[in-house]
Amino acid sequence: MATPNIGFDPQAFRNALGTFTTGVTIITTQAEDGSPVGITANSFNSVSLNPPLVLWSLSKKARSLPVFSTGKHWNVHVLSTEQESLSGRFATQGEDKFAEIQFDSGISEAPLLQDCTARFQCRTAFQYEGGDHVIFVGEVLAFDHSERAPLAFQSGQYALATRKPRSELRLATTPPPPECSYTEDLLGYLLGRAHYQLLNALRLLLNNQQLDEQAFFILSVLCIRDNLSLEEINTFVNYTGHEVTLPSMRFLERQNLVAIEGVPGQQRFVLTANGREASLQQLALAKLVEEDLSAKLGPADAQALKVLLKRLIVVSDPGLPDLWAPR
Amino acid sequence: MATPNIGFDPQAFRNALGTFTTGVTIITTQAEDGSPVGITANSFNSVSLNPPLVLWSLSKKARSLPVFSTGKHWNVHVLSTEQESLSGRFATQGEDKFAEIQFDSGISEAPLLQDCTARFQCRTAFQYEGGDHVIFVGEVLAFDHSERAPLAFQSGQYALATRKPRSELRLATTPPPPECSYTEDLLGYLLGRAHYQLLNALRLLLNNQQLDEQAFFILSVLCIRDNLSLEEINTFVNYTGHEVTLPSMRFLERQNLVAIEGVPGQQRFVLTANGREASLQQLALAKLVEEDLSAKLGPADAQALKVLLKRLIVVSDPGLPDLWAPR
Repeated sequence: MATPNIGFDPQAFRNALGTFTTGVTIITTQAEDGSPVGITANSFNSVSLNPPLVLWSLSKKARSLPVFSTGKHWNVHVLSTEQESLSGRFATQGEDKFAEIQFDSGISEAPLLQDCTARFQCRTAFQYEGGDHVIFVGEVLAFDHSERAPLAFQSGQYALATRKPRSELRLATTPPPPECSYTEDLLGYLLGRAHYQLLNALRLLLNNQQLDEQAFFILSVLCIRDNLSLEEINTFVNYTGHEVTLPSMRFLERQNLVAIEGVPGQQRFVLTANGREASLQQLALAKLVEEDLSAKLGPADAQALKVLLKRLIVVSDPGLPDLWAPR
Repeated sequence: MATPNIGFDPQAFRNALGTFTTGVTIITTQAEDGSPVGITANSFNSVSLNPPLVLWSLSKKARSLPVFSTGKHWNVHVLSTEQESLSGRFATQGEDKFAEIQFDSGISEAPLLQDCTARFQCRTAFQYEGGDHVIFVGEVLAFDHSERAPLAFQSGQYALATRKPRSELRLATTPPPPECSYTEDLLGYLLGRAHYQLLNALRLLLNNQQLDEQAFFILSVLCIRDNLSLEEINTFVNYTGHEVTLPSMRFLERQNLVAIEGVPGQQRFVLTANGREASLQQLALAKLVEEDLSAKLGPADAQALKVLLKRLIVVSDPGLPDLWAPR
């Protein structure tokens, strides 16, 4: 622990406060002239169940303070992971925040935004002094909530909250013996096992149709980017440690999945109609496997897993060429 | 969106409120008799920067209400992911919550817990009416914060907040053409690429020492569980689609990594001292690769990735035997 800060560097204080994870809300009301008003806030929290009360704080310098102070009704929208751009829009002054936004009709005139994780329609119960902020406590008159995964905020950045198992999740039924330094906690083990289990699920769906892992990679590469030389194919797959050779391409040719064009030494490989169909079928089944697993993990955690894998790929990228780049 | 709830099923209201992600805090104070008091709360939030104010709410039914109401000082501890059990302990009535807990000395007599993500030492500034709760607003007199990843709470469960890139993270420099249904967003692609990039990084560290993926698996299995038949080895690795054959074991024998014991048909395979050393070296390097990548992702996100991979493995497990089980 660092030495306590007494005297207060505001940035250090903000950083310390930022370690407390929050959701993200947009709070809306209607001005006296009928115009909609809204701001992004993460100072929301629940207060009371009976009566149902929630609170949030608004800076005394906020241009919307007079409207919220005099208005009676406001709506709190707990934003979903899909609404990050909306959060940004309502956090920025001056923009026409409500341009092209559809409202639902609520119990007051305050705008009721759509596609949120949860919404609370409130009437001001108390306004309390809070230093450079005013604390608004509202009675909840109505609420609803959807299955959309909520957006989180952590240390100044948007975040996804992924479920943490109550006790440590163990794959093995027994803890490893203490002398064994190779444990199931090794990231490399987890990635390899997850990869091969997914491939295994796909193989079962393909139902005895032999799915050689390398053939799967080659067909996928050609499906995205057809008509490649052997060297070009290898630039996309050699990081797997499995080099693609002419015999493996000849094998795919015999299965009528790939056609070989050009003279020896300058051969290029193209998918046959049959090969394209096989690749698209594999892809469709891979999506099916993914949908099944995403449903089991929950959509928010499946999304978080993909984000984390992408970040891992970026930080461990050995410099692979862009398979999807235009030619 | 569901129809708004007017009339209030308390459970539905709690569920809707729970969609707002929070951190987890323990708030402590000292009773007049000198005994320490503490409770778990996720109703914490920041209020004001100047003066520095924070707030939280306490149920009017809480046994600690009189102490907090009359006491002047209390400390807020933003818990780290390692402190989940502490959170549980302080959320439960009656336990001797402070048994065997070490305190740091703070600016008041309120207990100051150790190993937290952040701590705020406060003096009550206001107590406000909040329905069935009292809202405590405190002036922050001192604070500190560490690099420990914070614990989050979401929909009634502990959670990890993983950083969400500001814009959608794309591996490819250009979006895929619309007719290409094979995109980098496919979970199978991400898992395969992440797996092979990790293996590739390991291969580079092994510095030209040939690392055949299958050999790596075989050595790892034998390192955990030695003296296996070919059939037994295959029960642990055949989900990878790469069957281990006698010739591949003979190849490892020629490299003096594996010894073959028993008569043909009843052969068993054991690691040589050399093979064990090679396996442990691979393991040490795999940990090095993991440490490097974890530092780049950040420890909290690396932890979240491993939790998510374990959950994925559990839900896609084809029924693999437990490699670490006692024999």
